[in-house]
Amino acid sequence: MAVASVTPTPLLKDELDIVIPTIRNLDFLEMWRPFFQPYHLIIVQDGDPSKTINVPEGFDYELYNRNDINRILGPKASCISFKDSACRCFGYMVSKKKYIYTIDDDCFVAKDPSGKDINALEQHIKNLLCPSTPHFFNTLYDPYREGADFVRGYPFSMREGAATAVSHGLWLNIPDYDAPTQLVKPRERNTRYVDAVMTIPKGTLFPMCGMNLAFDRELIGPAMYFGLMGDGQPIGRYDDMWAGWCIKVICDHLGLGVKTGLPYIWHSKASNPFVNLKKEYKGIYWQEEIIPFFQSATLPKDCTSVQQCYLELSKQVKEKLSTIDPYFTKLADAMVTWIEAWDELNPTGEGLAKPSILNGPGK
Amino acid sequence: MAVASVTPTPLLKDELDIVIPTIRNLDFLEMWRPFFQPYHLIIVQDGDPSKTINVPEGFDYELYNRNDINRILGPKASCISFKDSACRCFGYMVSKKKYIYTIDDDCFVAKDPSGKDINALEQHIKNLLCPSTPHFFNTLYDPYREGADFVRGYPFSMREGAATAVSHGLWLNIPDYDAPTQLVKPRERNTRYVDAVMTIPKGTLFPMCGMNLAFDRELIGPAMYFGLMGDGQPIGRYDDMWAGWCIKVICDHLGLGVKTGLPYIWHSKASNPFVNLKKEYKGIYWQEEIIPFFQSATLPKDCTSVQQCYLELSKQVKEKLSTIDPYFTKLADAMVTWIEAWDELNPTGEGLAKPSILNGPGK
Repeated sequence: MAVASVTPTPLLKDELDIVIPTIRNLDFLEMWRPFFQPYHLIIVQDGDPSKTINVPEGFDYELYNRNDINRILGPKASCISFKDSACRCFGYMVSKKKYIYTIDDDCFVAKDPSGKDINALEQHIKNLLCPSTPHFFNTLYDPYREGADFVRGYPFSMREGAATAVSHGLWLNIPDYDAPTQLVKPRERNTRYVDAVMTIPKGTLFPMCGMNLAFDRELIGPAMYFGLMGDGQPIGRYDDMWAGWCIKVICDHLGLGVKTGLPYIWHSKASNPFVNLKKEYKGIYWQEEIIPFFQSATLPKDCTSVQQCYLELSKQVKEKLSTIDPYFTKLADAMVTWIEAWDELNPTGEGLAKPSILNGPGK
Repeated sequence: MAVASVTPTPLLKDELDIVIPTIRNLDFLEMWRPFFQPYHLIIVQDGDPSKTINVPEGFDYELYNRNDINRILGPKASCISFKDSACRCFGYMVSKKKYIYTIDDDCFVAKDPSGKDINALEQHIKNLLCPSTPHFFNTLYDPYREGADFVRGYPFSMREGAATAVSHGLWLNIPDYDAPTQLVKPRERNTRYVDAVMTIPKGTLFPMCGMNLAFDRELIGPAMYFGLMGDGQPIGRYDDMWAGWCIKVICDHLGLGVKTGLPYIWHSKASNPFVNLKKEYKGIYWQEEIIPFFQSATLPKDCTSVQQCYLELSKQVKEKLSTIDPYFTKLADAMVTWIEAWDELNPTGEGLAKPSILNGPGK
């Protein structure tokens, strides 16, 4: 098999699912075949469930449309967004694997400066399997990388680092700009390949983009909720941002690491800035209050599981953000519903089977 | 002039001094000639003051040896280290310029991946003249750089950034490792050129190396004290680390930015790891307590000048670190002496002449 020569031993083959939200045929997978084919895909079909999504031959996948989501979650399906890529988080919930990689269907294989195709998934796996350094900044970037180390003055007691929960990858070509920046700089392209992976320090928030993102489901999965966006909601394009703020506060509280940097994917086409502006405009002014809220959010010491942290955060959201807009009351309730649904589909206790309702997705 | 064709309009020519601590002839300047010759140099001669340091022809410089330091500072000269590159901070104090660049005499011009000589000073100046982003992380690195911007989800109210006080450059070839790491990895070389400048987020400490460092003297100068190291002191090679912890706490308090990343210099030779171990070993275990001290240090709101912040920090050092070793009482006192000496040589009030004692360094 040609694939075998490219990736002789695909890392974490049986421990990672690739989650793809889509409304169209997945021709983009052809380019990813050498890297993705060994893995299992979870495709979350957004929009009209009667439409057939074509998946290229040879991929191992399960596909869920809105009817499947409604059937599996029942009334709790209300926490999963519709007509917005936020629906992807349903895939995180139904996965049975330890790791998730999620990618948008307009993202292609990028090349490194030497011209070689970048195996984005492999780099994400490396990022997740090696520790983070959230407590002190290492000026030579990832100290665990070959040819690098901790620099003079880095405390030895901190050199074991923290477990990595999230790996945030970047984009060459079309950068992930908001609508106003897209409008002002329609021709800007990201051509700079920065050869670094770094830990986002404890206490620092970042804008997490869901386009090229991997995480450890066991460590942080229940916090990776992409919120209420799109159809029937006053806001869009803040799904990944919302998740990013929540996961960062919780990772900081639980002592987990979040990395950003490599790998790059090639982002092929800019979305329509006028449509984006309509989706984003409330978020653009709401975030001026939301971000200070998350910057000052603290969680009580007795919150030791991701679920506990997330439910506590939902309370604080309801209490402190509902004054901005009634939407946040609805969102806080959806956060609770999300956790209930997560726990229903992911019962704790070793050896417990998944609920039988999960059997038979619409493959 | 050949120089003019390389740097037609050297940036900040009359507003920046280059400070070089040394014990030997400054042949290394030959390689830097195209970049440094337009600027004024302040050379701080360490060790035997009777030794003559040769400076290549054509450079504009003033040179201070220990006798000069003692003459200029009188009893306050006790705060300036001897037989340690920490003595360089005397140069910061006697400068009359707004900006300082300091470099070690074993640092040479590095090449970028295209093979072009890197004008390190020019990059530092760019870093200092453009804002920092300490309050929120930008995943595409410096948002002010050409071809980059703030990404989706970056709050618009934070896009003006903060004034940049410090620019910390990096090193190709010999990395800045501590003695234990030097011993374990004697052959490790830094070959990775990471094409990025980033702001170290508010609340995060970093190991600041003095080898390739620029700063705004007006914004942060009085905190750039390199401590008591070397001759007669129980510790060495922590001069820049000490300054880095202090300036970061004060920059965070005053809302100033600290950047790290580009430019690279070529660090030519590793210092002796056995000698380094002797100098460092107390620092290696002391830093396990010092760093948590600085991580939790807060300054009162009424500290609005760098001097006020620094004196407050010296009190906290005396109070909280003296339990580690009596050295910290001495260091705290030296911090106060440093500020007194700084203020004496740098009287505030527009148009005030520098004290006449400053005239006639031993050029």
